[in-house]
Amino acid sequence: MAQTIQDEVKDEIKGIISQGGRAPFLCVIQIGEDPASTTYVKNKIKAAQYTGIESENIRLPSSTTQDQLLDLIHMLNTNNDVDGILVQLPLAAKMNEKKICNAVAPNKDVDGFNVLNVGKFCVDELAFIPATPAGVMEIIRRTGIETFGKNAVVCGRSKNVGMPIAMLLHADGIYETKAGDATTTICHRYTPPDKLTLFTKTADIIVTAAGVPNLITADMVKEGVAVIDVGITRVKDEKTGKTKLVGDVEFEGVCQKASYITPVPGGVGPMTVAMLMKNTLMAYKKVIKLD
Amino acid sequence: MAQTIQDEVKDEIKGIISQGGRAPFLCVIQIGEDPASTTYVKNKIKAAQYTGIESENIRLPSSTTQDQLLDLIHMLNTNNDVDGILVQLPLAAKMNEKKICNAVAPNKDVDGFNVLNVGKFCVDELAFIPATPAGVMEIIRRTGIETFGKNAVVCGRSKNVGMPIAMLLHADGIYETKAGDATTTICHRYTPPDKLTLFTKTADIIVTAAGVPNLITADMVKEGVAVIDVGITRVKDEKTGKTKLVGDVEFEGVCQKASYITPVPGGVGPMTVAMLMKNTLMAYKKVIKLD
Repeated sequence: MAQTIQDEVKDEIKGIISQGGRAPFLCVIQIGEDPASTTYVKNKIKAAQYTGIESENIRLPSSTTQDQLLDLIHMLNTNNDVDGILVQLPLAAKMNEKKICNAVAPNKDVDGFNVLNVGKFCVDELAFIPATPAGVMEIIRRTGIETFGKNAVVCGRSKNVGMPIAMLLHADGIYETKAGDATTTICHRYTPPDKLTLFTKTADIIVTAAGVPNLITADMVKEGVAVIDVGITRVKDEKTGKTKLVGDVEFEGVCQKASYITPVPGGVGPMTVAMLMKNTLMAYKKVIKLD
Repeated sequence: MAQTIQDEVKDEIKGIISQGGRAPFLCVIQIGEDPASTTYVKNKIKAAQYTGIESENIRLPSSTTQDQLLDLIHMLNTNNDVDGILVQLPLAAKMNEKKICNAVAPNKDVDGFNVLNVGKFCVDELAFIPATPAGVMEIIRRTGIETFGKNAVVCGRSKNVGMPIAMLLHADGIYETKAGDATTTICHRYTPPDKLTLFTKTADIIVTAAGVPNLITADMVKEGVAVIDVGITRVKDEKTGKTKLVGDVEFEGVCQKASYITPVPGGVGPMTVAMLMKNTLMAYKKVIKLD
């Protein structure tokens, strides 16, 4: 599915260029040398290359000050050749992450972390939606998982994943975000385990983004549930001693009952990268109005 | 409780003035002659007078154009003597309501309808929260209704009531909005009745803002539930022929089981006006930072 979306973006850009247009341009800023961030950035640049989006990976030393980063963002904001700007998170503690995210011009904010995009999106207006929740909804739509009038449970309430997913699942489908019209329960770290089970057992759709391995087990779900696992935790394999990535779902068991289930790794992750390319193309096409 | 809040605001303003400060200033703009709007505006002006907030009720004819209204708002935005600006809704169909709400300067937006305040609030930052959801949370806090780890059900997903209440109930209490940490289910017009009952029966707290009389009946709730009724529907009394206001809750029955319940009229309504005064005082004190 991620491949299909990338191909759709690629075809559209090919069309634009064949009409004499220029390619979309994405700037990815990375501060420091965090290896996980380096991998994520690499995947994004690779997807940009694949789809025909021009990109620049701006790597700055960890000694970079907040003011230097803000200056760079302001420069890119006013550069008409730049369509999308992305600051790879997490930033070092000395940086004010919210201030940095809000400094990115809302119309170039392909990550959807500027508070103006959050607000627009939360009132069902077309806005940049963070790539992970956008990817989750795209999976739901393209798979044909029905949401209208169904019960959805979201585990996790982070502002870039859980909260926007809950918003997209529960809100009204007639508006610009084409939300899901599902009855939606938001569970989180303070949901007692017995209550969590109560809700997951009623769920037609479970989206989990808690970062807690084996949070969702087979006995907690009903037959036919659709499960989308956004959790990512790095664990050490007892036998091999190697580390591996696991989701929130006890996959082997739950997949026996689920009508649909995404794996970790390989599920939502690639979709996130594909949706970022889609957001960049949206930024280039200036489809999001800010007034 | 509404009276107490108004008295707190009044005392604080008295203190400010005794220190040589000026009184907060609120502008309430009303277009046309809608009788319900006139009543609401009158209550707001009355509360302003009571608390010591100076106010001006700007009444414009229904022939007012959108551009004229926008010009007025811009003028008030740049007037340093004006702390709070409120445009009484609903506006006539010819007006773009969202554009009008977004024209109000975010730091004078005491109604909390500017998309920037929505975004800040949805990421748990201090922002102007619309007076009705703010009033609901104030009722919950001052009554001592426990929310942490409890089950909450919100009926209705409107952007100025249901959605913000769901946000305030589920989000993390450690941040600036001091949210409730409750497991929160958002029900709405497409929640099938049997599913609604399933959720309300598990609920420790029910906040209903659907505008559907008798939506919540005694058989749908558990013993000890706290019920806050934000619904307002004007119905005709069969016997007397007079119209009266009713909420979403079948009060007589539900109050037998509830540990706490608010009536309609007289419950959330007065709290809304009181919270608007609190927001105006916040605007005056410039406690909300926008950067």
